[in-house]
Amino acid sequence: MKEVEIPENLKDDEVLVKVKYASICGTDLHIYQWDKWSQNRIKTPLLVGHEFSGEVVKIGSKVKMVKPGDFVSAETHIPCGTDRLCRTGNMHVCADMKILGVDIPGIFAEYAKVPEVVLWKNDESIPEHFASVQEPLGNAVFTVTSPGVSGKSVLITGAGPIGVMAVQVARAMGAGPIIVSEVQEYRLNMAKENGADFVINPMKENALERVMEITSGEGVEVALEMSGNPSALNLATDAVMPSGKISILGVYKDNVDFDINKIVFKNITVHGIAGRKMFETWYILSSLLKNSRIDLSKVVTHVLPFEEWKKGFELMEEGKCGKVVLKL
Amino acid sequence: MKEVEIPENLKDDEVLVKVKYASICGTDLHIYQWDKWSQNRIKTPLLVGHEFSGEVVKIGSKVKMVKPGDFVSAETHIPCGTDRLCRTGNMHVCADMKILGVDIPGIFAEYAKVPEVVLWKNDESIPEHFASVQEPLGNAVFTVTSPGVSGKSVLITGAGPIGVMAVQVARAMGAGPIIVSEVQEYRLNMAKENGADFVINPMKENALERVMEITSGEGVEVALEMSGNPSALNLATDAVMPSGKISILGVYKDNVDFDINKIVFKNITVHGIAGRKMFETWYILSSLLKNSRIDLSKVVTHVLPFEEWKKGFELMEEGKCGKVVLKL
Amino acid sequence: MKEVEIPENLKDDEVLVKVKYASICGTDLHIYQWDKWSQNRIKTPLLVGHEFSGEVVKIGSKVKMVKPGDFVSAETHIPCGTDRLCRTGNMHVCADMKILGVDIPGIFAEYAKVPEVVLWKNDESIPEHFASVQEPLGNAVFTVTSPGVSGKSVLITGAGPIGVMAVQVARAMGAGPIIVSEVQEYRLNMAKENGADFVINPMKENALERVMEITSGEGVEVALEMSGNPSALNLATDAVMPSGKISILGVYKDNVDFDINKIVFKNITVHGIAGRKMFETWYILSSLLKNSRIDLSKVVTHVLPFEEWKKGFELMEEGKCGKVVLKL
Amino acid sequence: MKEVEIPENLKDDEVLVKVKYASICGTDLHIYQWDKWSQNRIKTPLLVGHEFSGEVVKIGSKVKMVKPGDFVSAETHIPCGTDRLCRTGNMHVCADMKILGVDIPGIFAEYAKVPEVVLWKNDESIPEHFASVQEPLGNAVFTVTSPGVSGKSVLITGAGPIGVMAVQVARAMGAGPIIVSEVQEYRLNMAKENGADFVINPMKENALERVMEITSGEGVEVALEMSGNPSALNLATDAVMPSGKISILGVYKDNVDFDINKIVFKNITVHGIAGRKMFETWYILSSLLKNSRIDLSKVVTHVLPFEEWKKGFELMEEGKCGKVVLKL
Repeated sequence: MKEVEIPENLKDDEVLVKVKYASICGTDLHIYQWDKWSQNRIKTPLLVGHEFSGEVVKIGSKVKMVKPGDFVSAETHIPCGTDRLCRTGNMHVCADMKILGVDIPGIFAEYAKVPEVVLWKNDESIPEHFASVQEPLGNAVFTVTSPGVSGKSVLITGAGPIGVMAVQVARAMGAGPIIVSEVQEYRLNMAKENGADFVINPMKENALERVMEITSGEGVEVALEMSGNPSALNLATDAVMPSGKISILGVYKDNVDFDINKIVFKNITVHGIAGRKMFETWYILSSLLKNSRIDLSKVVTHVLPFEEWKKGFELMEEGKCGKVVLKL
Repeated sequence: MKEVEIPENLKDDEVLVKVKYASICGTDLHIYQWDKWSQNRIKTPLLVGHEFSGEVVKIGSKVKMVKPGDFVSAETHIPCGTDRLCRTGNMHVCADMKILGVDIPGIFAEYAKVPEVVLWKNDESIPEHFASVQEPLGNAVFTVTSPGVSGKSVLITGAGPIGVMAVQVARAMGAGPIIVSEVQEYRLNMAKENGADFVINPMKENALERVMEITSGEGVEVALEMSGNPSALNLATDAVMPSGKISILGVYKDNVDFDINKIVFKNITVHGIAGRKMFETWYILSSLLKNSRIDLSKVVTHVLPFEEWKKGFELMEEGKCGKVVLKL
Repeated sequence: MKEVEIPENLKDDEVLVKVKYASICGTDLHIYQWDKWSQNRIKTPLLVGHEFSGEVVKIGSKVKMVKPGDFVSAETHIPCGTDRLCRTGNMHVCADMKILGVDIPGIFAEYAKVPEVVLWKNDESIPEHFASVQEPLGNAVFTVTSPGVSGKSVLITGAGPIGVMAVQVARAMGAGPIIVSEVQEYRLNMAKENGADFVINPMKENALERVMEITSGEGVEVALEMSGNPSALNLATDAVMPSGKISILGVYKDNVDFDINKIVFKNITVHGIAGRKMFETWYILSSLLKNSRIDLSKVVTHVLPFEEWKKGFELMEEGKCGKVVLKL
Repeated sequence: MKEVEIPENLKDDEVLVKVKYASICGTDLHIYQWDKWSQNRIKTPLLVGHEFSGEVVKIGSKVKMVKPGDFVSAETHIPCGTDRLCRTGNMHVCADMKILGVDIPGIFAEYAKVPEVVLWKNDESIPEHFASVQEPLGNAVFTVTSPGVSGKSVLITGAGPIGVMAVQVARAMGAGPIIVSEVQEYRLNMAKENGADFVINPMKENALERVMEITSGEGVEVALEMSGNPSALNLATDAVMPSGKISILGVYKDNVDFDINKIVFKNITVHGIAGRKMFETWYILSSLLKNSRIDLSKVVTHVLPFEEWKKGFELMEEGKCGKVVLKL
């Protein structure tokens, strides 16, 4: 942590934000740990961090969406705006994307510059520390809404912070039963507290048998793979009923030795989830927050003063937390 | 009310059911009032009624889905099973459909014959008087799920029993805000008690202005027209935002003098709702009931002994009720 | 026609185009006839026209998609880029939209200024006079692709230029049979020459009976209403089979006295078509043109020197033409 | 080949068909070769074969769809009709399915018994030897229609008989460009003759580079994996653009060592294709055939007298054929 200048030279499409809350993402943890991926991807020195809420301080000459004083957050994926993907509703996978806090300076600072294209104006009714975690919440919302879960049985494999948010979102959207499989007891408890109907620890019982028992042998209509664990992916594939759907948000360390035929013979649809639909996903999550359809108080487990950021990273390394939010 | 024989001569694909609860549908009321439609459609004498729950007593030789003792209800639309519509997932609009209690003998009786193709096996956990109203609940579910409401703003015009069920279903599926417009105060209260965020009486205030105020001038993403009132249809069309969706379950007395251009210029999708998707809709509503995602206790406002059926019809004529269920 | 200055003061997001071909739209005809709509909407003097192809001459400082020399056309709907509709894939119905040649100066001129956001880079293989009519072609493509027509029976009511393009597009996408109803013989012939399997003149025969005869009494799966005629809308509604789909591109002079119940009881989906999806529709039409899946040579019936623009408008008034293209 | 009795004891829902044409499926070849799968699955003696066209000779007492003299074919997947999958439009993956010519006696015979539920009445205009191959054609149609290809770029990996049918279907539905990758020259030629715009032999050139070159570096919008070859699946995954779609009809000998992250990061949708949607797929393929949108004359490469069935199997073993049809 060091003193940095307040960003100047705002471009005409940029906005200067006074950061109020910032939350720690798994990506930030990778960078903190300076792992292989970080060494290859990050050009130091870099101001990291990308999840935040704050107040607009100053706007570029062409900015139309916000004015000083507005309460805002932002999408992390900064699209080029002009390629084929951007022009067909797929900005979230723009071929020329920059990522806030990875490719360009981030927001773990008192002030941050953000281009208007990714800015999100928050509803005043949303608590500021919840507004900070909308970006990962958006991952959960995109994962849940892609297959659609209303009135359907759902298996969620992996109950990290985003998995637990997915439990809340699936519950808010009328899924049932919601079954969660996860190996860490702390996380299983979090899943339960956030609305899971059944939780399974695959280290302690046969997860597939348990899912089949709960669903009267039919399997689930939807599986959400949020762990990046190959055995969870196999569980999801076996547990989903024919013509069912699997959304994958998990990221896998290596190639997976996978039985593609199961997808074929069971007529399954698999959807890989990258980022958030810009900005359909944001409108949905905002509606859920504004109308109190979800309650993040048991997802945001820690709010720390910014000075205690190290403690936040340590909590995440131990896995004994949901989302950790830092107050500036 | 008179003594009828217990149905005999069960065909090989039929099931004999001991009726436990039967609920009164608007169609039954039309027949009770012996209006024009009834005079043209119904061939007397006819055993009316089609909403019920009961117990299987006897099964035809080819029946596979149920056995005596099973707790069941049924879909009212009896499809031919072999025409193009039946063969493409559209049994609910079969061109050669028979309707239970309208075209063939119904279920306001101690025992009823029902063909297996429309039979629905209930989960034992569902209260018997709630199981009786699954057919109108299915109308609500089909109306709500057709446009999809999760994380979206919704206007429901008309808060009769099915409109109020739609409020519950939309709420259970994460819609927000849910706005209800209705002229009867009794029904507005029911809407409110069942989860509406805002209720509007268009006789007392400008409904369109109110919707726009609630939605910050954007309009709603989805409108559900459940009243059959032309001015409600116009309200829905005006209140929905461009590229929005309208589902219509309402039935209109006459042609409507309608500005089609609004649909065109606003890029709106309108879906007419007939019956229930067989049986996708039933699986969804069953999941909502089983997993307690909805609570019908404030929708089923009256449970009467079967002998008091006249009182039930009178309540419905006054409009001072939700669903009226008769106990046999 | 008069001398106008070559536009100067290009904004940083604007492009200067040398117009090569320009085609006449129905909107231009309304303005030419100076009808009620035009008197209310247009602020004179105005350079009209919006369908064109041409060459980029100069670009603003922030333009990224094109460079001088590029072969381009443009979308007519200029969206604000920042409202809810623009941010959710619905730029084509932006609440703050400007229309080229209606709200701002158009392209019936040697040079035209166009903002980058609506610019479309043409494939070099597309003939320049065909490239000029991509905007109305896009209306046809959006109308046809909204319900989806591959392997489906289709009724197209109205065979003006866009209706005839819809015949081509539906044919290219594997619809069958394609039935066209239209009152003008010239247009019926055009429909036939462009791929209609059956043409019907409702002034000469019972159109509904004929559609039912062709479809063995089932009706069509999809109807495209492209005439703005209330009786065509009624035909479409009666001719479509239950659970079928109707797309409406037609614009109606007045309210229509319409039997909404048909939509409800038949479980029909109606979609109003406004403009073109930006830019999904453009990518599709471009693929059709580039890969020669459609052939516009019998749709573009007249290519005139720009000086003969009056003749073009007269041809359109008589209705004895497909698209009329002017060469500059 | 041996004499078998004409089937008797027709059940009330069965139909007796005089077989006129029968075609050889890959499954039949497996059984002919008596491979491991066959040894495990087939209970001998068994009358094999399931692709056919013929004439109804006799009908069971409850059969409604056909009468003696009707020209018919049949779906191979015989569903139970009452399980959850059958009741939700997923008969094609019924959990209690029987397969014609695998689990029950097939149709390589003069007469065959077929249950009404899978019977398909052919349009009289369809040539009898083409009607015989509708079942594999249905695989192609389901594979192509699942992602939707109209106006989209498509890569088809594998040009066996069904792959080549997919080329025809994709072409008929307006895909473009259509790129085919295949290692056998005979099949590459077939693909070209049936409408492929580009063919690639990955043994002779870098297939991915070639696809990228054809698509100006964007990749294809849709990939259809019809080979069951892991490297073809990898090619499909690499060649598809972000947010693109992959349909897999191929069946893989073993698990595939697969980089799931590509699916995730590229936001790809993968759909496994099993059988044919009953009977949406049949209505689509029937429309394509009836309206001559596809032409199977270069797909059905051999029509042999039934007595030469051995030659048919040999042709298939060599791979020097499209579909082989036997005339009885």
